[in-house]
Amino acid sequence: MTVRWNSVVLLAGGVGGARMAEGLARALPSGSLTVIANVGDDEEFYGLRVCPDIDTLLYTLSDRIDRGQGWGVGGDTVKALDVLRDLGAPTWMKLGDADFGLHIWRSWRLREGDSLSAITAEATKRFGAAAKILPATDDRLRTRLDTDEGWMDFQPWFVGRHCKPKVKELRFDGAGDARPGAPALAALAAADLIVIAPSNPLLSIEPILAVSGLREAIASAAAPCIGVSPLIGGKAVKGPLARLMADLGHQVTSAAVARRYGGLVDAFVVDAGDRADAGALEADGLAVLSTDILMNGPPGAERLARELLEFALTLPVQPGRAA
Amino acid sequence: MTVRWNSVVLLAGGVGGARMAEGLARALPSGSLTVIANVGDDEEFYGLRVCPDIDTLLYTLSDRIDRGQGWGVGGDTVKALDVLRDLGAPTWMKLGDADFGLHIWRSWRLREGDSLSAITAEATKRFGAAAKILPATDDRLRTRLDTDEGWMDFQPWFVGRHCKPKVKELRFDGAGDARPGAPALAALAAADLIVIAPSNPLLSIEPILAVSGLREAIASAAAPCIGVSPLIGGKAVKGPLARLMADLGHQVTSAAVARRYGGLVDAFVVDAGDRADAGALEADGLAVLSTDILMNGPPGAERLARELLEFALTLPVQPGRAA
Repeated sequence: MTVRWNSVVLLAGGVGGARMAEGLARALPSGSLTVIANVGDDEEFYGLRVCPDIDTLLYTLSDRIDRGQGWGVGGDTVKALDVLRDLGAPTWMKLGDADFGLHIWRSWRLREGDSLSAITAEATKRFGAAAKILPATDDRLRTRLDTDEGWMDFQPWFVGRHCKPKVKELRFDGAGDARPGAPALAALAAADLIVIAPSNPLLSIEPILAVSGLREAIASAAAPCIGVSPLIGGKAVKGPLARLMADLGHQVTSAAVARRYGGLVDAFVVDAGDRADAGALEADGLAVLSTDILMNGPPGAERLARELLEFALTLPVQPGRAA
Repeated sequence: MTVRWNSVVLLAGGVGGARMAEGLARALPSGSLTVIANVGDDEEFYGLRVCPDIDTLLYTLSDRIDRGQGWGVGGDTVKALDVLRDLGAPTWMKLGDADFGLHIWRSWRLREGDSLSAITAEATKRFGAAAKILPATDDRLRTRLDTDEGWMDFQPWFVGRHCKPKVKELRFDGAGDARPGAPALAALAAADLIVIAPSNPLLSIEPILAVSGLREAIASAAAPCIGVSPLIGGKAVKGPLARLMADLGHQVTSAAVARRYGGLVDAFVVDAGDRADAGALEADGLAVLSTDILMNGPPGAERLARELLEFALTLPVQPGRAA
């Protein structure tokens, strides 16, 4: 199958986003995929900046990823973390030795005054990653959660407490002041297709859209925008999405996810089994692709990507929509 | 053999100093050894503070050391360093993964505002090290070398260039402003014996003595002070000492080393084979112990330590010398 896409932009969080990115990278001509990554999950550990979503994208797209768990470096060890534990430091965040190499390098470069965008671009190039990766913003943006145990930062809730504290509200600290990087805006303006990955809409995609001007840049782009559902039969493939949506009073359906992207998406990809969602979204005026959306390994991700790219050929480009 | 020593202070650099420290720790009652460590070799790598002499002491005294090479952590791996190399960072300093755990922790604590003394004391305790380890100073002090290739920092010369550039002059940057830590001064004042380890006098011991007031604190201490020669038959057991002394125009003998400590040492330990040095130093008025000074493994270090401690019983305490 050949496709005409030369400039695809993917909005992505971690594991699900990285799988979609890998599928698209395999399906597209080399150099045509740019991923705009969530930074709301970023955290400092021992003074080192960890960017879990960027890291998962970087490791997946450079084939360094631990395929079993979907994050971290394959075959990594935890000697540094063991020493930190011996020294009495908190070690609930599982940072491997190879992983620390990246965090050390990034933190060093940040302290030297380089931007996260420039650092990520260099890492992408040095690792030979199959796509460009751009942080949604170089400014500080942090997802925080109001829970039944009070306000928490994202990683202490997600990893430290295994998502157990019930969430009442989400906040993206700094989003009002955070500006998208120039390369992200340029990529969106030049895109011929924009894809929203099957990442957690509340925790991965919305922190990207919360960056000042990014939502508008997508809404005004000429390229069609397709979202992919992170739910199959009302269940998330991975992660706390279903419970989080329910806790926050949302319907746990693909249609509900698509509607959160109202005004952005022209089309949505739902699982073949979710017929009611497909019907509801078509009634909303969206184009819908119903197919098997489970990405089973890189070939499965590539299969979904090819179907999505083929389907996207049927969508109208809206050159007049661009500012 | 029992000894009466309850409070011994050792001045030490890296590998040779750590061997002497281990021998003394094995020979002395628990809790009676304090090591004042050189920090002139300290360096920042990727924004992380590495203290090679403190680390070697810490790893040796907690039995984590790589016994084969005398530095670093036994069985350590270099996954983080491999990633740093992939990312284009200079990686001539061989920092292992477990080793990085300590550097990450120390750098984090320093940025949080803790002193190197407090951090080192906590690491010593957490690692269960067999002696207290105190940095000679918490202030910045760096050994720099004027070479036939210009001025160089210590680690780039020592590790980066394998000591190849010929040294014309040594300088201890910051020594004039650096103050000893209060615990180091207290340990010297309370000591019943002071030992200068068979470390490199020019690169390990003199940067300690260059700390403002430290030389005076030793000179005015009531405790006798014994030095141990780092040379056997004019050759160093390890490291660049012999060539460095020759390059700087010094005689490469145990007597020449002892004379650099003039006004500090009451006694000196030389190798049994170095009879001329023993005679010369006795003529200088020093008490001399001539014995096998090669520390072959921890039992060999303990044997030398016991001989030294026994010999030190013959030295007069000078309570009147204390200020």
